Amino acid sequence: MRVLVTGASGFVGRACLHALTELGCEVIAASRRPGPPAPGVEWTTVDLLAPGEAARLGREARADTLLHLGWTVDPGRFWTDPANLDWLGATLKLVRAAAEAGARRVVGVGTCFEYDWPVEGDCHELTTGLRTHTLYDAAKDACRRTLEAYAAQERIAFAWGRLFYLYGPGEDPARLVPGLARALLAGEPARLSSGLAVRDYMDVRDAGRSLALLATHTLEGPANIATGQGVSIAGIAREMADLAGRPDLVMLGALPDRPGEPARIVADVSRQKEALGFIPSISLRQGLNDALAHWRSRAI
Amino acid sequence: MRVLVTGASGFVGRACLHALTELGCEVIAASRRPGPPAPGVEWTTVDLLAPGEAARLGREARADTLLHLGWTVDPGRFWTDPANLDWLGATLKLVRAAAEAGARRVVGVGTCFEYDWPVEGDCHELTTGLRTHTLYDAAKDACRRTLEAYAAQERIAFAWGRLFYLYGPGEDPARLVPGLARALLAGEPARLSSGLAVRDYMDVRDAGRSLALLATHTLEGPANIATGQGVSIAGIAREMADLAGRPDLVMLGALPDRPGEPARIVADVSRQKEALGFIPSISLRQGLNDALAHWRSRAI
Repeated sequence: MRVLVTGASGFVGRACLHALTELGCEVIAASRRPGPPAPGVEWTTVDLLAPGEAARLGREARADTLLHLGWTVDPGRFWTDPANLDWLGATLKLVRAAAEAGARRVVGVGTCFEYDWPVEGDCHELTTGLRTHTLYDAAKDACRRTLEAYAAQERIAFAWGRLFYLYGPGEDPARLVPGLARALLAGEPARLSSGLAVRDYMDVRDAGRSLALLATHTLEGPANIATGQGVSIAGIAREMADLAGRPDLVMLGALPDRPGEPARIVADVSRQKEALGFIPSISLRQGLNDALAHWRSRAI
Repeated sequence: MRVLVTGASGFVGRACLHALTELGCEVIAASRRPGPPAPGVEWTTVDLLAPGEAARLGREARADTLLHLGWTVDPGRFWTDPANLDWLGATLKLVRAAAEAGARRVVGVGTCFEYDWPVEGDCHELTTGLRTHTLYDAAKDACRRTLEAYAAQERIAFAWGRLFYLYGPGEDPARLVPGLARALLAGEPARLSSGLAVRDYMDVRDAGRSLALLATHTLEGPANIATGQGVSIAGIAREMADLAGRPDLVMLGALPDRPGEPARIVADVSRQKEALGFIPSISLRQGLNDALAHWRSRAI
């Protein structure tokens, strides 16, 4: 199976490439900057926001399946980035061109921010309502709705992986887990809010495997890509500090809580498990330990 | 107030131009083909689907308000036209560029097909649920959702006029009212289905006035642009045949009903009336009589 992956050199993209080649796929990896050579991966350089480029890629890649990860992902900025509008437009161009060139399956990625998070319980793809929180999730959700209608009309298979919270190899240093690892390894205090918010944190290598499976599967519709396990931010900090042997450095409550922050965002993963047949294999403790080892090797 | 109108030479566009100039607006009328000169109207020729053109128009028009009507409207084909994807992308480019160039209000148009039509009763903007029926309404609804989030974030006023069924001057000859008029005037049988389906038919001149008011108003969110009066297709045919003096030509049941056709699509217009302050002024009988007069003059 020939799979076109966009955003291939990104945090999630790299994890997907590895998982797709392990599944025996021939991968066309599209990105603004080519990534490292790998067996079964053919890199192609493209700026999907440049005029005509998304359509050209979709047409020329001759893929059976499109796994579209490319989108604005600048940390902190992507929630409100007006480029969300451009990414929606570019995505539609890409999908139309790929479909017209013979692609029979399209998989996009959305976000847990599409859900109207229940105060208690987990977010389920088919029973939890949706609600707009930011421009990012509004554009993602609009993308899913449009592609779902287009795919149904054109008789193309369409699935939508909803990512929750990710951490792991290749993560931006400014994010929670790398920030904790670097502070703890440097012997500096890790200053946090109360840390009571509960989230679903998945190692990006598991996310890559789940998305690769979704790309090569027949499952259609939305599918949470997550662990189904809620963990508090404080719990992550304590676990990491325990692994680093520096519990004294965790300063919970040193920063104010963000107003309006939801108490709980956790996925119901029964669809991922039962329909897709995927079970995450990297425990939080293992993933955090790997992150710590990574940042320790970088610090030397 | 300087208003940029796209799709300005179209069926709805022409009606809006007239109404906007009557309200004292300075109008930039954008269209693939320039329309007739009119006081207060400056025509600009643009293909919004050509690369870079939507952004250029939005940037260069220097409008306070954008009334965006341009979209794929090929009769019969627009429901499934893959260009719906391109129009969504072009719309987002246009709105972003207009907003960044200083536009403070954006008004788009949607469709009664966005609603999950109630079996009885009328479609209300804030209480009736939404449901995808075709690629056209899916793309329109996705457009509304994305623009609503973008406008909220950028503190721009945003409204969304939902058009129901329209007829009137400039209508495509293949549609219901011109088809009836031409058959009756030619003394040919007007072959119809059972005609039991009830719809909300508005004269496009009223729709133009309502949309022009919406463009120049402060009202935000979705607003039905309709009469609030349900009429059956058989009722329209009988009314027109009565006006033409040829009730003998109406052949109800001569064609099969379309399977799955909803029994009733009628707008609740309380928001148009109370929040927008608009009441349609052209009765169905008057509008049909005008259509008949128009086609009689063309037949001579």
